[in-house]
Amino acid sequence: MEYGITRAVAEALDTADPLAGYRERFVVTDPGLIYLDGNSLGRLPAATRDHLREVVEVGWGDGLVRSWQEWIDWGARLGDRLAEHVLGARRGEVVVSDSTSVNLFKLAGAALDEVADRRTVLMDAEDFPTNRYVVQGLTQQRGLRLRRLGSDLDGGLDLDRLRTALDRDVALVVLSLVSYRSGALQDMARVNEMARSVGARVLWDLSHAAGAVPVELAAAGTDLAVGCTYKYLNGGPGAPAYLYVRRELQERLRQPIWGWYGQREQFAMRPDYDPVDTVERFLVSTPPLLSLAAIEPGLDLVEQAGMAEIRAKGLLLGRLAVDLAESWLVPLGFRLASPRTPERRGSHVSLYHPDAWQICQTLAAEAKVVCDYRVPDRLRIGPSPLYTRFTEIWDAMDRVREVVARGGHRSRPSGLARVT
Amino acid sequence: MEYGITRAVAEALDTADPLAGYRERFVVTDPGLIYLDGNSLGRLPAATRDHLREVVEVGWGDGLVRSWQEWIDWGARLGDRLAEHVLGARRGEVVVSDSTSVNLFKLAGAALDEVADRRTVLMDAEDFPTNRYVVQGLTQQRGLRLRRLGSDLDGGLDLDRLRTALDRDVALVVLSLVSYRSGALQDMARVNEMARSVGARVLWDLSHAAGAVPVELAAAGTDLAVGCTYKYLNGGPGAPAYLYVRRELQERLRQPIWGWYGQREQFAMRPDYDPVDTVERFLVSTPPLLSLAAIEPGLDLVEQAGMAEIRAKGLLLGRLAVDLAESWLVPLGFRLASPRTPERRGSHVSLYHPDAWQICQTLAAEAKVVCDYRVPDRLRIGPSPLYTRFTEIWDAMDRVREVVARGGHRSRPSGLARVT
Repeated sequence: MEYGITRAVAEALDTADPLAGYRERFVVTDPGLIYLDGNSLGRLPAATRDHLREVVEVGWGDGLVRSWQEWIDWGARLGDRLAEHVLGARRGEVVVSDSTSVNLFKLAGAALDEVADRRTVLMDAEDFPTNRYVVQGLTQQRGLRLRRLGSDLDGGLDLDRLRTALDRDVALVVLSLVSYRSGALQDMARVNEMARSVGARVLWDLSHAAGAVPVELAAAGTDLAVGCTYKYLNGGPGAPAYLYVRRELQERLRQPIWGWYGQREQFAMRPDYDPVDTVERFLVSTPPLLSLAAIEPGLDLVEQAGMAEIRAKGLLLGRLAVDLAESWLVPLGFRLASPRTPERRGSHVSLYHPDAWQICQTLAAEAKVVCDYRVPDRLRIGPSPLYTRFTEIWDAMDRVREVVARGGHRSRPSGLARVT
Repeated sequence: MEYGITRAVAEALDTADPLAGYRERFVVTDPGLIYLDGNSLGRLPAATRDHLREVVEVGWGDGLVRSWQEWIDWGARLGDRLAEHVLGARRGEVVVSDSTSVNLFKLAGAALDEVADRRTVLMDAEDFPTNRYVVQGLTQQRGLRLRRLGSDLDGGLDLDRLRTALDRDVALVVLSLVSYRSGALQDMARVNEMARSVGARVLWDLSHAAGAVPVELAAAGTDLAVGCTYKYLNGGPGAPAYLYVRRELQERLRQPIWGWYGQREQFAMRPDYDPVDTVERFLVSTPPLLSLAAIEPGLDLVEQAGMAEIRAKGLLLGRLAVDLAESWLVPLGFRLASPRTPERRGSHVSLYHPDAWQICQTLAAEAKVVCDYRVPDRLRIGPSPLYTRFTEIWDAMDRVREVVARGGHRSRPSGLARVT
């Protein structure tokens, strides 16, 4: 008989789960598939399917161009909902638009153009690639110095290292609230305070945090943030991103892409760019409306469940995954590649294994477990509290154990995943 | 008895129309509504409704993150189809991504960063607002001189004026192939040649041309272009835009937004930005997939009908609208605000009237005619050859005549349209 965390423990957690009912609000075509990649692309809410049909057939098909009277404010309207229910910000501080990369470009550009006398930008050398590249481009174009701070791959950027690097030449710090690889959760308020003490701004990427951990932008004194909607917010593949600018800063910052959606009385089509004073000055142009519309039903679910309940379940899911990994997988060559303390992680857990890529492929092909891989040797387990069951975590870890114990992954070629 | 173009003439044109069958490939919920705003938002193709359902329910709902293996190349794949069938370019020269404004920012930025010794950018003072604002921002940020050339509101930019302004200080000319207001069609090859003779580049906006007139980027010797997919290409509200970079230039140009979708071996996630040599170096990040997917069925229709047939019908539709306007509407205070010669126009026709805004509102509210308005006093009539009937043009002009003759628009307040 097995000693330790039996499947009955996971079953009991499912029974007691106050969010258990949310799973049926999602389209689950294959109940046997264990989907642990909600940190990459969240599942399809059933209501999204219906809402999109309505927007396509009634809004576009029947309403035609007239529907823009209603659609034109959706970026701001969804931004307000995100602000109030997900990001801990005020109405009028968040707007949905463009991609995370383009929003990062806009806000980092705006922050850099605001200060003329500071020449340094700091970032985490292990931040998500597009963030690193976008900031590299911006600093190179402006002749600024980019300092990439060495980071603990499994634990995130060390704050002592950041403190040492922060001086009065720093214009901007770009950081992810939750690391895409390790899941390490930063202390937002503390970083903001450290930066503020030397007069630098911080631009946060919330992509792996929003919808997984309660984000409190106002309480943490955050100036600038961006993030995506297709992970824990279940907004659909490549759904438009959002950006946040603290109200008091909006009028002072001007972003580099002067599109007409930021223009005062846009349809007056005046000769010179003259942006509105509100957060909409960070908009550029006509949003991809179908992808934008798909965000809304996922937001309904997050709002109804509440971020506190979502986080509480996320902590338990993560704890179960880590406990099982330590019992079953560490003896097989795995190592935890995330902070050990649940409160220091977002919703995903990273496991190191030299054959992580082959294991990931084998799990999908032979064990009906979809998780993901990140270079160089990390398996990411991304439960999403709204639809992941505790028994799925238990079964998935059991199948990882089974596959690796029998060497089922050894015949697969090594290579690179092509998955966002 | 009426003398001149009777309704029977329009009926005969419909009967003889080789594209007549395409209308039923679109969703038409209200056959009594005359929709003449295809220059703003094209109608919903019936196949798009089904394709989107498939992408949402099967691709996202069932395939989940695994579908990115297929989706990730769609921007390039749709770009190739546009290149071959719509834009007269070669495969590997067009990619679908972002919005027209963001693409304009990327390509204009790339062109300006390529040359250090030229300090002037030329554009049409009457170009579409977002183009003007984006270029204004780019030149201001780089300390360059922006010269906005005065333009004939009804006839487009005069080429003699452009020739006079072109000198060896000009780095870039930004122009629309078809003017959004007057519908005036520029001579692309001639402008390219004029600019080339002084060593300047031209960046074309094809938004109001693509899908309405055959665009021959290669034959015209075009270097750079951008455009949207939601007008005559019927790609859906805010559908992603495209960009074109002539193959020989791709390796030399580097755009300002260094996103990871332009990166060589993107999933290797290396420290430094190192873009691919192909047109995909002008990509930034994860595309809004649902809006991207919606483009495809509209492209099928354009390819099947063929740009030559589409243009032939577009010329006739425009001629009919202009002839009727001159017979019926000029006596009521209208004036043609587009080139008189059909070949010098795109697919839409612009009519001046001091009460254009009120007339536009009255037509929609009382006469079941949807066309659109542009400041300061223009009514745009935008037939789309794939679904507009000749009798619709006849009926619409008849209703305009009826509304204005009885002064039906006089009780409406003046104001600004909020329609893209």
